[in-house]
Amino acid sequence: MKKILVVHGPNLNLLGKREPEHYGNTTLADIDSRIRDAAEKAGVEVDIRQSNHEGEIVDMIQSGIGVFDALIINPGAYTHTSVAIRDAIAASGIPTVEVHLSNIHKREDFRRHSYVAGVAVGQIAGFGAQGYMLGLRAALNIIEEAKQA
Amino acid sequence: MKKILVVHGPNLNLLGKREPEHYGNTTLADIDSRIRDAAEKAGVEVDIRQSNHEGEIVDMIQSGIGVFDALIINPGAYTHTSVAIRDAIAASGIPTVEVHLSNIHKREDFRRHSYVAGVAVGQIAGFGAQGYMLGLRAALNIIEEAKQA
Amino acid sequence: MKKILVVHGPNLNLLGKREPEHYGNTTLADIDSRIRDAAEKAGVEVDIRQSNHEGEIVDMIQSGIGVFDALIINPGAYTHTSVAIRDAIAASGIPTVEVHLSNIHKREDFRRHSYVAGVAVGQIAGFGAQGYMLGLRAALNIIEEAKQA
Amino acid sequence: MKKILVVHGPNLNLLGKREPEHYGNTTLADIDSRIRDAAEKAGVEVDIRQSNHEGEIVDMIQSGIGVFDALIINPGAYTHTSVAIRDAIAASGIPTVEVHLSNIHKREDFRRHSYVAGVAVGQIAGFGAQGYMLGLRAALNIIEEAKQA
Amino acid sequence: MKKILVVHGPNLNLLGKREPEHYGNTTLADIDSRIRDAAEKAGVEVDIRQSNHEGEIVDMIQSGIGVFDALIINPGAYTHTSVAIRDAIAASGIPTVEVHLSNIHKREDFRRHSYVAGVAVGQIAGFGAQGYMLGLRAALNIIEEAKQA
Amino acid sequence: MKKILVVHGPNLNLLGKREPEHYGNTTLADIDSRIRDAAEKAGVEVDIRQSNHEGEIVDMIQSGIGVFDALIINPGAYTHTSVAIRDAIAASGIPTVEVHLSNIHKREDFRRHSYVAGVAVGQIAGFGAQGYMLGLRAALNIIEEAKQA
Amino acid sequence: MKKILVVHGPNLNLLGKREPEHYGNTTLADIDSRIRDAAEKAGVEVDIRQSNHEGEIVDMIQSGIGVFDALIINPGAYTHTSVAIRDAIAASGIPTVEVHLSNIHKREDFRRHSYVAGVAVGQIAGFGAQGYMLGLRAALNIIEEAKQA
Amino acid sequence: MKKILVVHGPNLNLLGKREPEHYGNTTLADIDSRIRDAAEKAGVEVDIRQSNHEGEIVDMIQSGIGVFDALIINPGAYTHTSVAIRDAIAASGIPTVEVHLSNIHKREDFRRHSYVAGVAVGQIAGFGAQGYMLGLRAALNIIEEAKQA
Amino acid sequence: MKKILVVHGPNLNLLGKREPEHYGNTTLADIDSRIRDAAEKAGVEVDIRQSNHEGEIVDMIQSGIGVFDALIINPGAYTHTSVAIRDAIAASGIPTVEVHLSNIHKREDFRRHSYVAGVAVGQIAGFGAQGYMLGLRAALNIIEEAKQA
Amino acid sequence: MKKILVVHGPNLNLLGKREPEHYGNTTLADIDSRIRDAAEKAGVEVDIRQSNHEGEIVDMIQSGIGVFDALIINPGAYTHTSVAIRDAIAASGIPTVEVHLSNIHKREDFRRHSYVAGVAVGQIAGFGAQGYMLGLRAALNIIEEAKQA
Amino acid sequence: MKKILVVHGPNLNLLGKREPEHYGNTTLADIDSRIRDAAEKAGVEVDIRQSNHEGEIVDMIQSGIGVFDALIINPGAYTHTSVAIRDAIAASGIPTVEVHLSNIHKREDFRRHSYVAGVAVGQIAGFGAQGYMLGLRAALNIIEEAKQA
Amino acid sequence: MKKILVVHGPNLNLLGKREPEHYGNTTLADIDSRIRDAAEKAGVEVDIRQSNHEGEIVDMIQSGIGVFDALIINPGAYTHTSVAIRDAIAASGIPTVEVHLSNIHKREDFRRHSYVAGVAVGQIAGFGAQGYMLGLRAALNIIEEAKQA
Repeated sequence: MKKILVVHGPNLNLLGKREPEHYGNTTLADIDSRIRDAAEKAGVEVDIRQSNHEGEIVDMIQSGIGVFDALIINPGAYTHTSVAIRDAIAASGIPTVEVHLSNIHKREDFRRHSYVAGVAVGQIAGFGAQGYMLGLRAALNIIEEAKQA
Repeated sequence: MKKILVVHGPNLNLLGKREPEHYGNTTLADIDSRIRDAAEKAGVEVDIRQSNHEGEIVDMIQSGIGVFDALIINPGAYTHTSVAIRDAIAASGIPTVEVHLSNIHKREDFRRHSYVAGVAVGQIAGFGAQGYMLGLRAALNIIEEAKQA
Repeated sequence: MKKILVVHGPNLNLLGKREPEHYGNTTLADIDSRIRDAAEKAGVEVDIRQSNHEGEIVDMIQSGIGVFDALIINPGAYTHTSVAIRDAIAASGIPTVEVHLSNIHKREDFRRHSYVAGVAVGQIAGFGAQGYMLGLRAALNIIEEAKQA
Repeated sequence: MKKILVVHGPNLNLLGKREPEHYGNTTLADIDSRIRDAAEKAGVEVDIRQSNHEGEIVDMIQSGIGVFDALIINPGAYTHTSVAIRDAIAASGIPTVEVHLSNIHKREDFRRHSYVAGVAVGQIAGFGAQGYMLGLRAALNIIEEAKQA
Repeated sequence: MKKILVVHGPNLNLLGKREPEHYGNTTLADIDSRIRDAAEKAGVEVDIRQSNHEGEIVDMIQSGIGVFDALIINPGAYTHTSVAIRDAIAASGIPTVEVHLSNIHKREDFRRHSYVAGVAVGQIAGFGAQGYMLGLRAALNIIEEAKQA
Repeated sequence: MKKILVVHGPNLNLLGKREPEHYGNTTLADIDSRIRDAAEKAGVEVDIRQSNHEGEIVDMIQSGIGVFDALIINPGAYTHTSVAIRDAIAASGIPTVEVHLSNIHKREDFRRHSYVAGVAVGQIAGFGAQGYMLGLRAALNIIEEAKQA
Repeated sequence: MKKILVVHGPNLNLLGKREPEHYGNTTLADIDSRIRDAAEKAGVEVDIRQSNHEGEIVDMIQSGIGVFDALIINPGAYTHTSVAIRDAIAASGIPTVEVHLSNIHKREDFRRHSYVAGVAVGQIAGFGAQGYMLGLRAALNIIEEAKQA
Repeated sequence: MKKILVVHGPNLNLLGKREPEHYGNTTLADIDSRIRDAAEKAGVEVDIRQSNHEGEIVDMIQSGIGVFDALIINPGAYTHTSVAIRDAIAASGIPTVEVHLSNIHKREDFRRHSYVAGVAVGQIAGFGAQGYMLGLRAALNIIEEAKQA
Repeated sequence: MKKILVVHGPNLNLLGKREPEHYGNTTLADIDSRIRDAAEKAGVEVDIRQSNHEGEIVDMIQSGIGVFDALIINPGAYTHTSVAIRDAIAASGIPTVEVHLSNIHKREDFRRHSYVAGVAVGQIAGFGAQGYMLGLRAALNIIEEAKQA
Repeated sequence: MKKILVVHGPNLNLLGKREPEHYGNTTLADIDSRIRDAAEKAGVEVDIRQSNHEGEIVDMIQSGIGVFDALIINPGAYTHTSVAIRDAIAASGIPTVEVHLSNIHKREDFRRHSYVAGVAVGQIAGFGAQGYMLGLRAALNIIEEAKQA
Repeated sequence: MKKILVVHGPNLNLLGKREPEHYGNTTLADIDSRIRDAAEKAGVEVDIRQSNHEGEIVDMIQSGIGVFDALIINPGAYTHTSVAIRDAIAASGIPTVEVHLSNIHKREDFRRHSYVAGVAVGQIAGFGAQGYMLGLRAALNIIEEAKQA
Repeated sequence: MKKILVVHGPNLNLLGKREPEHYGNTTLADIDSRIRDAAEKAGVEVDIRQSNHEGEIVDMIQSGIGVFDALIINPGAYTHTSVAIRDAIAASGIPTVEVHLSNIHKREDFRRHSYVAGVAVGQIAGFGAQGYMLGLRAALNIIEEAKQA
């Protein structure tokens, strides 16, 4: 069975608990539950983790080498500041889908640049929690194509 | 029945016919056919158009006001140079999903900026033809949420 | 009788129909009617055109060579992206008044630069529909001074 | 009777006396006289002042609070360097029309940016002395609309 | 009793032990002791923490949600590089006072920008250890005003 | 008895009279009165002045040489544009505390840079009228330390 | 017989009719006639087109795929603003010679950058109408070398 | 007898009194006395003024029109921030020699640009008080050449 | 016996295991072993550590104060993003040699800047694993010179 | 008989001997021979020189004043760094054709700017050795037109 | 007897022979003769050299170490591009006066920056040949002050 | 026997003779002697040259083609300004080690960029004369690896 690693970056653990007017009432637990349901339906195993620590996220990705067939990552604030996570993804060789809840391309200037984009297959931004569902689909498709290639 | 407008920008009509090593053998007709199938399954009507002319794309969007519930647009090269298309989308008030075949965030500098992003709900980039399927899903979800709101 | 060409750029055809909270309820037809009235009173002929196509606007300006004594243009989004319209105005030799409904100098960065400004006599921005009336006055004055020179 | 404050910035007192090849022979007195005539016809009172001192212009604007219904200002060189005048206008709450004799958008780079534009209703540039007449019209229109609102 | 969280960022634990010619002989323990004394006098509880880890500081702030009435933070080097801490503060909703020992506005270019400033009530920089006392006062004042509002 | 000069820059005389929604109802007279009270309690003499003129502020600072033990200055708009005030402070040798009502680091780009910061001991920004009280404390502390050194 | 497509961009149809002091009296018809003569002598077929519309130029290039052995293009103003024409050339795979009447490298800043250069074999600029003759030679040479390769 | 206006900008009145380690012990009075001696020997009249006010310097220059044959100006801090003084010099038509005590080209970035340089005949920087003597020579030479022309 | 701390930054633990085509087959263990051999021959003690966590690297450096005579650090991705590590090195006062496997000066733009360089004695980049041997030599030389000074 | 100076800049003497995969096998001697043949046919004398020294190239150009009717120069690396060669060309008054083997506009950023372009009649880039033949034609044409003017 | 080295940079040997409309008819020989006369009167020895070669100018300056008491240099084009000449001056320790015929601060952007300024005592620009006389004076003064120090 | 070319750039001939406080008392002759000793021990031949002329350094490198197995170059000031030396190294195909006495990454901005780095194997900077010894080691290692490959 194919395995997918899902990584949530810093502050995403607060989702649905803070600033509901901005981010809605959906909690990270809700999202994770929806991801697990969708994964089950698709016949794929998912491992979901969250961390506020850049180094831990690097560790997570490294430990996924040879274990996971795809990585879905919402690097949160580290999207814009972490070369270490970028390098970990590149070194891991795991096909990666970058997901953002908000459309980072219409926010502050410093949120428009993604270090991760340079090593990801693609990016999905602006569709809220639904972005993870789209990301899962994208990841499944990438795995499928890899099998055929 | 809900209606979705799909707009392909300049040079996308060449898809699958030129530079197959870069863009694969899938033609725009193939993609359109896949979009129509998915739309049919989802019970939504799609109208798919392509143009190499910035002004025509502005006209298309304007003529869609009051007709379509969502817009899926791959503005191609106009992504990076057209304020007119951006303004048309903003004025139209139609919820818009921006799709790119390639991950524009890892290409030449001038391809990283999108005028359209500033007025779109979200952006999907880098997943090839599959990006349109994800875009359709995203659009359906937006329409669904709008109904509930 | 002196003749003035009035050109409205992309998306101005939507005026008064969309985003009334921003642009008011005055339609382009209303504005054109006010321009025609004012022109009649001033004893000058006006020809008013609108296009969403950059190339068509270039054509309009070119076809005005030797026909019109002044050009009043609101290039809309093309203000910021069209070197072709700038070159057409320069080549036409028709004295040009640049008009903008909003004060572009207090909007997004990309709206602050005007390619057209470099070849126009002057610019009027921020006075809404009234800007065209001021533009007409400015154009009449320019024609008057040209006669005297 | 409605009252309008007209402020001429630094070096405008030299108008018509120096560099006639650039600025013509019209003196500031001529312009002021034309403004007064037009104001009289329009049934509005005007108070016209000139200063080479940034601080004095700030004082003028502050002293106009609660007295004037509109401000027509040609901030001259202070357009490009004075945040203090910008702040005075913003704080005064007086609707402001920015006027420039030359088309600042086609001159040296440092003349293209206006601090005042960020707090003015609109800008008129490039029409020489006539710009003040257009500015007066614009101001009257703004006052008129304010009355109706 | 009101509660205030005080967070010292990376390398501040070395204070007074290294580079005394630059930073004086006051140790972080001295500063903390002065903060505790002042807090006691003001009848407010303080919790003081230090970390060299960005992720730990994010954790500290998150764990302070609903517990503290104000945050006094000297983010040290993370001031200039951490979007994650900025986002944690914004999400926490805790009114925040940013303190810097040195006047960062007169140091190297890369120290002049603060990501935290964008989400803090205010900033105090350049007054050495005394800055924390001023920060405590500012925090008390903010809490006081919040009570009255 | 130690003496402190307090200088309010341009437009601060309007405080509490204009834009109360932004700046509250506290007038400059209120602030000055609070400063005088606090100074009296601290056993220090204060001289408080306001000017809208850059040159006058330079004069004020120069005339304070040898007279005042500290300068508290809110340079208002001149913060961002006046090298002359910066040079006056540097030449005066008077220890200087820079105060801003708003957190200039989260406002328009042009308000983020302070010429004065380069020659001030420190900066306090974003705490409203309370900032002056903090500034007074900071100044007293600087004077105290100077006595001991 | 080898075939070459020659494309003239916006406003080039005015050549020789406007601004003779800048561009001389040679009309586009004169140039086209010289190109046809030279082509005939070289035993190559030429198809010469002009358009003011970006989209039409994209269409022209696309329709040339599989038909022409080389493209000589003077993109005029679109040189500096059109990613769409660049992409059309790249996708077409037709070896391309970029020609400019004036030496764009010594004109306004915005005319120095060419989007087309990134996908053209080479560029010839500054030799007036003669540039097309040189361009024809260059194109013939490219075709010749392609035959030999 | 030829007449030369010498203008000292802001803070130059402090020369020799403050920061002797940087600027030496020569006071402005000493410099003025040396200038007067040299002028007397050269048979030319000098009028020497100092001001901390930008507006006053503009007034001084304007009042010199038709009176002085040359202007020697050390604009001090206004060198870098005053477009008004630049415009006054340009409008005055008085040949101008720009003098700086220090070599502004090796100081802070913001001191390297001179608005005045754009309208001055030449610039002398870095030779301390001696710079004025050189400036006087340069001015005399300019006057001499003007006589011969 | 002199002691040297060797710190490997993020992702260096993957060396020789991933992307062998880029980084070769030498593992970090191989490198460490070579460093230990060389250290032994040179009669110096080495302590070698690796971490993916910025904060841990700060801790490592801090804990080395007073213990180590030199630091050899390859900060990996943190080279380009960590002010905290820079500050830790500066505060530690330990002479530091910066080593990079690849020649960072010929890679992506964001890899060319090193925060660490500003506080290191020198930098060695581009010589692969051999760079550590050179770094050890450099460190020994620095220690030697320190002894003699 | 008309005379043309041909100057090859630094490293062009290696042509055809090094990096044949990039620059082909054509040596500089081959090119010079082709230039001489073409010149002979055209009835014009050529003098061809090469130097790796910026100063020598300046000398060559200076010594050509009054001797040559045109200059064909491939400044090689000095294109991007030499103001001295630019000034020599400008001072020489010899009409100049700039030639580059590669299309510098699609190479590294630092190769896109040409100091020489600012003083040359035109530029030919990207056509390899053939570029010199085109350059010779361009030069002959310029000489021809100069004769007729 | 004190000795001064005068160095003229590239293309200055053409002075008075080319572009008389810009640079007048004064030749470098004329200037040198005037410098020699003035030096003789001042009782100082001068050695005047010119070179078009950057390396030769570096050699000249190096060979002047311990020989000359001052250097007057007009680095011509190398002003803007030569770090080597800057370093030679710095290493030489010879007090240096930088002279430019034209006012480089009002010319093309690339002529405004001087590498030499960073190591020169001062700069004289814009006074034509007279600039050398002023430079000689400045140099004499520097020598005089050095004697007294 | 393997041969290594060592090239010292401009002003390095002054080493140890000038500015000893910055660069120490070690002369270039000392360094060369140490290099020769180390080379002899390593059984490799070295040829050491110095020049202040960019063109001569280009010549040196070219003449080393096919002769030397490695190049150790300290390009001095030409590091930052010479594309010609970069191109010579690239064309030569000789593996190159770039050495700098000082840590250029912590000096003036213009010294941080190296044109040579783009074509060198690696860079060693900041270790003074010892840098050449490290460079020799690096070069020997490169030669060794090349033999094995």
